[in-house]
Amino acid sequence: MRLAELSERSGVSTATIKYYLREGLLPPGRQINARTAEYDEEHLRRLRLVRAMIQVGRVPVAKVREVLGHVDDDSLGRAIRLGAAVWALPQVPEPDEDDEYVQTAHREVTRLLDRLGWENTKQLATISPAYRSLVVAVAAFRRLGYDFGAELLAPYAELMHRTAVLDLDNMETYASEAERVEFAVLGAILNEPVLQALHRLAQEEETTRRYGFE
Amino acid sequence: MRLAELSERSGVSTATIKYYLREGLLPPGRQINARTAEYDEEHLRRLRLVRAMIQVGRVPVAKVREVLGHVDDDSLGRAIRLGAAVWALPQVPEPDEDDEYVQTAHREVTRLLDRLGWENTKQLATISPAYRSLVVAVAAFRRLGYDFGAELLAPYAELMHRTAVLDLDNMETYASEAERVEFAVLGAILNEPVLQALHRLAQEEETTRRYGFE
Repeated sequence: MRLAELSERSGVSTATIKYYLREGLLPPGRQINARTAEYDEEHLRRLRLVRAMIQVGRVPVAKVREVLGHVDDDSLGRAIRLGAAVWALPQVPEPDEDDEYVQTAHREVTRLLDRLGWENTKQLATISPAYRSLVVAVAAFRRLGYDFGAELLAPYAELMHRTAVLDLDNMETYASEAERVEFAVLGAILNEPVLQALHRLAQEEETTRRYGFE
Repeated sequence: MRLAELSERSGVSTATIKYYLREGLLPPGRQINARTAEYDEEHLRRLRLVRAMIQVGRVPVAKVREVLGHVDDDSLGRAIRLGAAVWALPQVPEPDEDDEYVQTAHREVTRLLDRLGWENTKQLATISPAYRSLVVAVAAFRRLGYDFGAELLAPYAELMHRTAVLDLDNMETYASEAERVEFAVLGAILNEPVLQALHRLAQEEETTRRYGFE
């Protein structure tokens, strides 16, 4: 298809597509002559992904380029390629390791991982942004006087693990590795708003079931 | 306790506490003489809640006052008081009802609620921010060519319902109604970062279990 059709089918303006091409976020089309290039379904799919990252995920252009570099690098293992997206999302600031609440939070999160038997995550703890986010959130609760310890967190973690199993099962329904990795990137950006909305809806449902509408 | 002790135990500066008092976010202390007031454990608890809303939840002061008004209004039913916090959190923009993807998303979300038997939520759909967020998120997926329909969403919704059951069970361990409502407000602000971090950790764990560390 030509640029105009790519624009129409994706809903992205030709000016923006040209910008993505210049920035290397979209591979060049097949050049037919000096003024015309031809694009295919893969361009359309990649364009949707780029748009989701930039418009929905608010990922900066340089970061998008970096994530796509990992996504397209066949020499990397699957776990690294799948993780590239999440690791590129905006992260919480580094915890202050001198803070006593942060230190207790580290111990509680470690106890939690032991209890769950999440050995892989424990190995990744020093480099994982997710581990860091959890420590920061648990420390914030403790600072407010709430004891969110391993016992309280464990059943939540089990439910989130079942959620992650669904995520990967859904991803594996896609036939090609390229589509799978792209779905994982999209999931990292778009899944969280869906889960958050479902959680709030479920709270509404359960609250009104227990206490009525008044 | 005096203002200085309240400041020390809460970690909030006396200047900030005076500001909260002026803004009506904290009830006045018991006046001992013209220059000295006495504060109690309830002030400390309320101060922690206000700080969580403002510093962690980034809720504007006027909104905090509105939420606390609901929290403290015994004439309101429990479901309304518990919901006040979530409804005060930053919400997604209104969906564009003329957009075809939004219209399809409404139909899919309605099918989902029917399938789940979430009758209460269905009744609240026209006024619920959570319902609106879900429609916006599902429409965003559809616009990108991904069919996030009722069948795919239902198992996620079931897991989020079990999460909501845990939320309310934990809340019910608190003895007084005031503490319960405050815990629900805090939960609305702080739970989501915890759940999000646990979900990302679980994805790491499950991905590395399936595909190894490479």
